[in-house]
Amino acid sequence: MTTTVLRTADAWYVQIGDGAIEINTTATTTAELLRDRSAIDAATDPATAVSVDTLDLVSPVTTPCRVVAQMTNYASHVKDSGMDPATVPLTFFRKTSGSINGPTADIVKPAHVRFLDYEVEIGLVIGRELPVGTTVNESDLSTYVAGLVVTNDVSARDIQLPKTQFYEAKSYPTFTPVGPALVLMDADELKRFSDLRLQLRVNGELRQDAVVGGDMIYPPLRALQELTRFQRLDVGDLVLTGTPAGTALSAPPKPIEMIGALLPPALKWKAFFRSQSRNTDYLKAGDVVEAGIATDDAAIDLGTQRAVVRYA
Amino acid sequence: MTTTVLRTADAWYVQIGDGAIEINTTATTTAELLRDRSAIDAATDPATAVSVDTLDLVSPVTTPCRVVAQMTNYASHVKDSGMDPATVPLTFFRKTSGSINGPTADIVKPAHVRFLDYEVEIGLVIGRELPVGTTVNESDLSTYVAGLVVTNDVSARDIQLPKTQFYEAKSYPTFTPVGPALVLMDADELKRFSDLRLQLRVNGELRQDAVVGGDMIYPPLRALQELTRFQRLDVGDLVLTGTPAGTALSAPPKPIEMIGALLPPALKWKAFFRSQSRNTDYLKAGDVVEAGIATDDAAIDLGTQRAVVRYA
Repeated sequence: MTTTVLRTADAWYVQIGDGAIEINTTATTTAELLRDRSAIDAATDPATAVSVDTLDLVSPVTTPCRVVAQMTNYASHVKDSGMDPATVPLTFFRKTSGSINGPTADIVKPAHVRFLDYEVEIGLVIGRELPVGTTVNESDLSTYVAGLVVTNDVSARDIQLPKTQFYEAKSYPTFTPVGPALVLMDADELKRFSDLRLQLRVNGELRQDAVVGGDMIYPPLRALQELTRFQRLDVGDLVLTGTPAGTALSAPPKPIEMIGALLPPALKWKAFFRSQSRNTDYLKAGDVVEAGIATDDAAIDLGTQRAVVRYA
Repeated sequence: MTTTVLRTADAWYVQIGDGAIEINTTATTTAELLRDRSAIDAATDPATAVSVDTLDLVSPVTTPCRVVAQMTNYASHVKDSGMDPATVPLTFFRKTSGSINGPTADIVKPAHVRFLDYEVEIGLVIGRELPVGTTVNESDLSTYVAGLVVTNDVSARDIQLPKTQFYEAKSYPTFTPVGPALVLMDADELKRFSDLRLQLRVNGELRQDAVVGGDMIYPPLRALQELTRFQRLDVGDLVLTGTPAGTALSAPPKPIEMIGALLPPALKWKAFFRSQSRNTDYLKAGDVVEAGIATDDAAIDLGTQRAVVRYA
């Protein structure tokens, strides 16, 4: 059975049902906690449980840590972005770990950002160091991936697209809500990765709803194999695995895109964002964003995070 | 007068002329050294000097640290890349600090990389922490920028262009040679930033040769002002400020680029790299890459690094 780890400002817990049992550990970082597995496993006494509802949860992934993200990694989102799933390369970018946010904390739109978007994603939390050149196989994947978290790769589209490099647009403070839980999984449980369903709602309206299997292009094994060509990872680092279709941004129809490609960039983006100003799906102050990930049989459940959008 | 700091595997030095005077410090990181300024300033006794030539220098910037880089930031390089300097946005991407290499260490081309390129760049070494939201003014720039280093932003073009995100292509181990020296500068010296000339030679042939002033689009003040919108920086972090024209890669002529924009990406890149295979400027095994930065009057001299290219 998976182990659901929660964190507050001053303690770690294992969740069992609606109760949370404090972990007897001195760990202050996710890496330290993962190395104290016996303490996690010893948190079993229901008599000491408190109600999860009473806890003020923060991100179960502590900072600083590396946050590496996969670009366009679901066929549905690739098509939505005007690209071809058959030829999209396995691509990474970085986010700041300063963008990590708690699972109920506000998402804050900087004053200069106009088009704020959401992307529910499965986050891999690294459980064993991966120096550059490490060979990762299917059989040892679960030793490198300690567990999974719900993440939201919040994106300022009007920064992201003209700049082309995604780093700034996805790195503002609060732009990576993580949690509520870090769900630790063994090898058999991790094999059910492809059964996970990602859902994101804005004010109750279902915007993203997809199952990994049949939609994800480069699964975690491929991602880690390619990452270790150039990037060391350490315990507690976070790898985001891409988002399915349903973001506020979707690509313009092909003929319009082709004409756009012939325009100077400044004119092209001006025209594009003029059209996007009529798109009401971007996030506004007060919007409630709920992102959850689980298998349909609930055997694996990463929980649901709930954020309110606020203007800086 | 500037202070030229050198580093070997087990010591720090101040360079005076051809001599190097060991710094009496317990610092093991660049951040710790910068906080021990009195020890740096005390390294003045010529009787204790050893010849710089006898030292096996390593990068004066220690890892881990953040390595943030500016995209296309010289008008000459922007034009070379087929873009318009008037509209190119101020854009950042990340490199791994695992890519940092010593000033005489080999640059190693991974087996799968075909088109290996060079980019001489001025590196800013951060001297004072910059939390997100820090206001940086001209008058306090030199407190945030402790000094400058020569860097080479080595780039695998066949990875960079199809993937669009620059992170992997510029992050392989050895892809960021740094040094030979970290040159500490006061406010008046830093004002001469725009007088710095960047030069890069391959096997003695001058490939890049440009002065900052009149060519750089977004100077360090603007870069740090924009970075602190989203990215915290700490003492010892490294910011690369872009490269001038003269890299092996240059953009295809406009009409060809426009036709390319209409092709599916896979076909477009296949055609582009077929044309690049006739470009003999990319780095090959045994090539000697020398990168140096100084003012023409040599009042400020960051030194010259020398790397040999090797195939993995």
